[in-house]
Amino acid sequence: MNFDPQTLRFDDKGLIPAIAQDADNGDVLMMAWMNADAVARTLQSGRVTYWSRSRQAFWVKGESSGHVQELVEVRVDCDRDCLLVLVRQTGPACHTNRRSCFYTALRDGAEVEIMRPMAGPG
Amino acid sequence: MNFDPQTLRFDDKGLIPAIAQDADNGDVLMMAWMNADAVARTLQSGRVTYWSRSRQAFWVKGESSGHVQELVEVRVDCDRDCLLVLVRQTGPACHTNRRSCFYTALRDGAEVEIMRPMAGPG
Repeated sequence: MNFDPQTLRFDDKGLIPAIAQDADNGDVLMMAWMNADAVARTLQSGRVTYWSRSRQAFWVKGESSGHVQELVEVRVDCDRDCLLVLVRQTGPACHTNRRSCFYTALRDGAEVEIMRPMAGPG
Repeated sequence: MNFDPQTLRFDDKGLIPAIAQDADNGDVLMMAWMNADAVARTLQSGRVTYWSRSRQAFWVKGESSGHVQELVEVRVDCDRDCLLVLVRQTGPACHTNRRSCFYTALRDGAEVEIMRPMAGPG
Protein backbone atom coordinates (compact mmCIF):
# COMPACT_ATOMS: atom_id res chain seq x y z
CA MET A 1 0.00 0.00 0.00
CA ASN A 2 1.48 3.33 -1.07
CA PHE A 3 -1.11 5.48 0.65
CA ASP A 4 0.16 6.51 4.07
CA PRO A 5 -2.62 7.17 6.64
CA GLN A 6 -0.21 9.47 8.46
CA THR A 7 -0.68 11.99 5.64
CA LEU A 8 -4.25 12.56 6.85
CA ARG A 9 -4.99 15.40 9.24
CA PHE A 10 -5.96 14.11 12.65
CA ASP A 11 -7.37 16.18 15.49
CA ASP A 12 -5.57 16.85 18.76
CA LYS A 13 -6.60 13.36 19.95
CA GLY A 14 -5.15 11.73 16.83
CA LEU A 15 -8.59 11.01 15.38
CA ILE A 16 -10.39 11.69 12.10
CA PRO A 17 -14.18 11.49 11.58
CA ALA A 18 -15.32 8.71 9.26
CA ILE A 19 -18.78 8.83 7.67
CA ALA A 20 -20.14 5.41 6.69
CA GLN A 21 -22.37 5.48 3.63
CA ASP A 22 -24.31 2.57 2.16
CA ALA A 23 -22.60 1.90 -1.17
CA ASP A 24 -25.80 0.51 -2.63
CA ASN A 25 -28.39 3.19 -1.89
CA GLY A 26 -26.39 6.18 -0.61
CA ASP A 27 -27.91 6.23 2.87
CA VAL A 28 -25.66 7.76 5.51
CA LEU A 29 -25.47 5.07 8.16
CA MET A 30 -23.29 6.45 10.97
CA MET A 31 -20.33 8.59 11.85
CA ALA A 32 -17.49 7.34 14.03
CA TRP A 33 -13.79 7.97 14.48
CA MET A 34 -10.58 6.41 13.27
CA ASN A 35 -6.96 6.88 14.20
CA ALA A 36 -4.18 6.23 11.67
CA ASP A 37 -3.94 2.56 12.63
CA ALA A 38 -7.69 2.08 12.27
CA VAL A 39 -7.51 3.55 8.76
CA ALA A 40 -4.67 1.16 7.90
CA ARG A 41 -6.51 -1.82 9.37
CA THR A 42 -9.67 -0.92 7.46
CA LEU A 43 -7.77 -0.76 4.18
CA GLN A 44 -5.81 -3.93 4.84
CA SER A 45 -8.62 -6.09 6.16
CA GLY A 46 -11.58 -4.82 4.15
CA ARG A 47 -13.54 -4.73 7.41
CA VAL A 48 -14.33 -1.21 8.57
CA THR A 49 -12.51 -0.61 11.84
CA TYR A 50 -13.02 2.44 14.03
CA TRP A 51 -11.39 3.69 17.20
CA SER A 52 -13.77 3.58 20.14
CA ARG A 53 -13.33 6.77 22.14
CA SER A 54 -15.24 5.34 25.10
CA ARG A 55 -13.33 2.06 25.22
CA GLN A 56 -10.05 3.47 23.87
CA ALA A 57 -9.71 0.40 21.68
CA PHE A 58 -10.07 -0.69 18.09
CA TRP A 59 -13.65 -1.36 17.16
CA VAL A 60 -14.08 -3.77 14.28
CA LYS A 61 -17.62 -2.87 13.36
CA GLY A 62 -19.92 -5.87 13.82
CA GLU A 63 -17.27 -8.01 15.52
CA SER A 64 -19.63 -8.83 18.37
CA SER A 65 -23.02 -8.08 16.76
CA GLY A 66 -22.36 -9.57 13.33
CA HIS A 67 -23.45 -6.29 11.77
CA VAL A 68 -20.23 -5.92 9.84
CA GLN A 69 -19.30 -3.26 7.32
CA GLU A 70 -17.51 -4.64 4.29
CA LEU A 71 -15.31 -1.94 2.82
CA VAL A 72 -16.12 -0.80 -0.70
CA GLU A 73 -14.04 2.37 -0.89
CA VAL A 74 -12.49 5.06 1.29
CA ARG A 75 -12.62 8.66 0.11
CA VAL A 76 -10.69 11.60 1.55
CA ASP A 77 -12.00 15.16 1.62
CA CYS A 78 -10.24 18.27 0.30
CA ASP A 79 -8.82 19.21 3.70
CA ARG A 80 -7.75 15.62 4.42
CA ASP A 81 -9.49 15.85 7.79
CA CYS A 82 -12.58 13.73 7.11
CA LEU A 83 -13.19 10.32 5.52
CA LEU A 84 -16.16 8.98 3.61
CA VAL A 85 -16.31 5.21 3.83
CA LEU A 86 -18.52 3.39 1.35
CA VAL A 87 -19.68 0.10 2.83
CA ARG A 88 -21.81 -2.95 2.38
CA GLN A 89 -23.68 -3.04 5.68
CA THR A 90 -24.96 -6.30 7.12
CA GLY A 91 -28.13 -5.65 9.14
CA PRO A 92 -28.49 -2.47 11.19
CA ALA A 93 -25.59 -0.05 11.52
CA CYS A 94 -26.99 1.49 14.71
CA HIS A 95 -26.74 -0.07 18.16
CA THR A 96 -30.49 0.65 18.52
CA ASN A 97 -31.03 -1.94 15.76
CA ARG A 98 -32.00 0.69 13.22
CA ARG A 99 -30.45 0.65 9.79
CA SER A 100 -28.97 4.13 10.30
CA CYS A 101 -28.06 6.13 13.39
CA PHE A 102 -29.75 9.18 11.87
CA TYR A 103 -33.32 8.13 12.61
CA THR A 104 -34.46 11.33 14.29
CA ALA A 105 -35.60 14.21 12.08
CA LEU A 106 -36.30 17.76 13.16
CA ARG A 107 -39.64 18.76 11.67
CA ASP A 108 -41.53 21.91 12.62
CA GLY A 109 -39.41 22.23 15.73
CA ALA A 110 -40.12 18.71 16.97
CA GLU A 111 -38.07 15.52 16.98
CA VAL A 112 -39.70 12.86 14.82
CA GLU A 113 -38.61 9.22 14.65
CA ILE A 114 -38.47 8.34 10.98
CA MET A 115 -37.05 4.82 11.18
CA ARG A 116 -38.04 1.76 13.21
CA PRO A 117 -35.68 -0.87 14.58
CA MET A 118 -35.13 -3.76 12.20
CA ALA A 119 -36.72 -7.09 12.96
CA GLY A 120 -34.36 -9.49 14.67
CA PRO A 121 -33.39 -12.92 13.35
CA GLY A 122 -35.83 -14.60 15.77
CA MET B 1 -39.29 26.08 17.82
CA ASN B 2 -39.53 23.55 20.60
CA PHE B 3 -36.33 21.76 19.72
CA ASP B 4 -33.49 23.11 21.82
CA PRO B 5 -30.03 22.85 20.17
CA GLN B 6 -28.51 22.84 23.65
CA THR B 7 -29.81 19.28 24.07
CA LEU B 8 -27.27 18.11 21.50
CA ARG B 9 -23.90 16.80 22.63
CA PHE B 10 -21.12 19.16 21.69
CA ASP B 11 -17.41 18.45 21.96
CA ASP B 12 -15.03 20.22 24.31
CA LYS B 13 -14.92 23.15 21.88
CA GLY B 14 -18.73 23.42 21.83
CA LEU B 15 -18.96 21.98 18.31
CA ILE B 16 -20.84 19.15 16.62
CA PRO B 17 -19.98 17.65 13.21
CA ALA B 18 -22.56 18.24 10.49
CA ILE B 19 -22.61 16.07 7.37
CA ALA B 20 -24.20 17.76 4.36
CA GLN B 21 -25.97 15.36 2.02
CA ASP B 22 -27.58 16.21 -1.31
CA ALA B 23 -31.30 15.71 -0.70
CA ASP B 24 -31.89 14.89 -4.35
CA ASN B 25 -29.31 12.21 -5.11
CA GLY B 26 -27.85 11.24 -1.72
CA ASP B 27 -24.29 12.36 -2.45
CA VAL B 28 -22.31 13.29 0.63
CA LEU B 29 -21.11 16.80 -0.15
CA MET B 30 -19.01 17.91 2.82
CA MET B 31 -18.56 17.79 6.57
CA ALA B 32 -18.20 20.90 8.68
CA TRP B 33 -18.94 21.99 12.23
CA MET B 34 -21.75 23.79 14.02
CA ASN B 35 -22.12 25.25 17.47
CA ALA B 36 -25.52 25.53 19.15
CA ASP B 37 -26.14 28.97 17.66
CA ALA B 38 -25.26 27.77 14.16
CA VAL B 39 -27.78 24.93 14.53
CA ALA B 40 -30.43 27.43 15.62
CA ARG B 41 -29.60 29.83 12.78
CA THR B 42 -29.74 26.99 10.25
CA LEU B 43 -33.18 25.94 11.46
CA GLN B 44 -34.52 29.48 11.64
CA SER B 45 -33.14 30.79 8.37
CA GLY B 46 -33.30 27.69 6.17
CA ARG B 47 -29.77 28.52 5.04
CA VAL B 48 -27.18 26.06 6.29
CA THR B 49 -24.83 27.88 8.65
CA TYR B 50 -21.64 26.39 10.06
CA TRP B 51 -19.09 27.60 12.56
CA SER B 52 -15.75 28.26 10.91
CA ARG B 53 -13.02 26.94 13.18
CA SER B 54 -10.30 28.83 11.27
CA ARG B 55 -12.12 32.16 11.30
CA GLN B 56 -13.96 31.60 14.60
CA ALA B 57 -17.09 33.04 13.04
CA PHE B 58 -20.43 31.95 11.65
CA TRP B 59 -20.16 30.70 8.12
CA VAL B 60 -23.35 31.01 6.10
CA LYS B 61 -22.49 28.53 3.39
CA GLY B 62 -22.36 30.28 0.01
CA GLU B 63 -22.68 33.78 1.45
CA SER B 64 -19.69 34.98 -0.56
CA SER B 65 -19.55 32.33 -3.31
CA GLY B 66 -23.26 32.04 -4.00
CA HIS B 67 -22.97 28.27 -3.52
CA VAL B 68 -25.68 28.21 -0.88
CA GLN B 69 -27.17 25.21 0.84
CA GLU B 70 -30.92 25.42 1.23
CA LEU B 71 -32.00 23.39 4.22
CA VAL B 72 -34.29 20.45 3.56
CA GLU B 73 -34.03 18.62 6.89
CA VAL B 74 -31.75 18.18 9.88
CA ARG B 75 -31.38 14.72 11.39
CA VAL B 76 -29.78 13.84 14.71
CA ASP B 77 -27.92 10.61 15.39
CA CYS B 78 -28.55 8.16 18.22
CA ASP B 79 -25.82 9.65 20.42
CA ARG B 80 -26.94 13.21 19.65
CA ASP B 81 -23.32 14.07 18.80
CA CYS B 82 -23.55 14.25 15.00
CA LEU B 83 -25.94 15.91 12.55
CA LEU B 84 -26.97 14.89 9.05
CA VAL B 85 -28.12 17.91 7.08
CA LEU B 86 -30.10 17.28 3.90
CA VAL B 87 -29.63 20.18 1.51
CA ARG B 88 -30.37 21.57 -1.91
CA GLN B 89 -26.89 22.60 -3.04
CA THR B 90 -26.39 25.41 -5.55
CA GLY B 91 -23.26 24.72 -7.61
CA PRO B 92 -20.22 23.12 -6.02
CA ALA B 93 -20.10 22.44 -2.27
CA CYS B 94 -16.29 22.32 -2.22
CA HIS B 95 -14.02 25.36 -2.28
CA THR B 96 -12.07 23.59 -5.05
CA ASN B 97 -15.18 24.04 -7.20
CA ARG B 98 -16.02 20.37 -7.13
CA ARG B 99 -19.53 19.25 -6.35
CA SER B 100 -18.34 17.31 -3.28
CA CYS B 101 -15.29 17.62 -1.03
CA PHE B 102 -14.85 13.84 -1.19
CA TYR B 103 -13.30 13.72 -4.65
CA THR B 104 -10.26 11.62 -3.76
CA ALA B 105 -10.68 7.86 -3.64
CA LEU B 106 -8.18 5.35 -2.29
CA ARG B 107 -7.85 2.60 -4.89
CA ASP B 108 -5.19 -0.10 -4.80
CA GLY B 109 -3.21 1.99 -2.34
CA ALA B 110 -3.18 5.10 -4.51
CA GLU B 111 -5.10 8.37 -4.35
CA VAL B 112 -7.32 8.76 -7.40
CA GLU B 113 -9.20 11.94 -8.30
CA ILE B 114 -12.72 10.86 -9.19
CA MET B 115 -14.37 14.24 -9.71
CA ARG B 116 -13.38 17.28 -11.75
CA PRO B 117 -14.07 20.91 -10.86
CA MET B 118 -17.38 22.17 -12.19
CA ALA B 119 -17.38 24.57 -15.12
CA GLY B 120 -17.68 28.19 -14.04
CA PRO B 121 -20.45 30.56 -15.13
CA GLY B 122 -18.15 32.26 -17.70
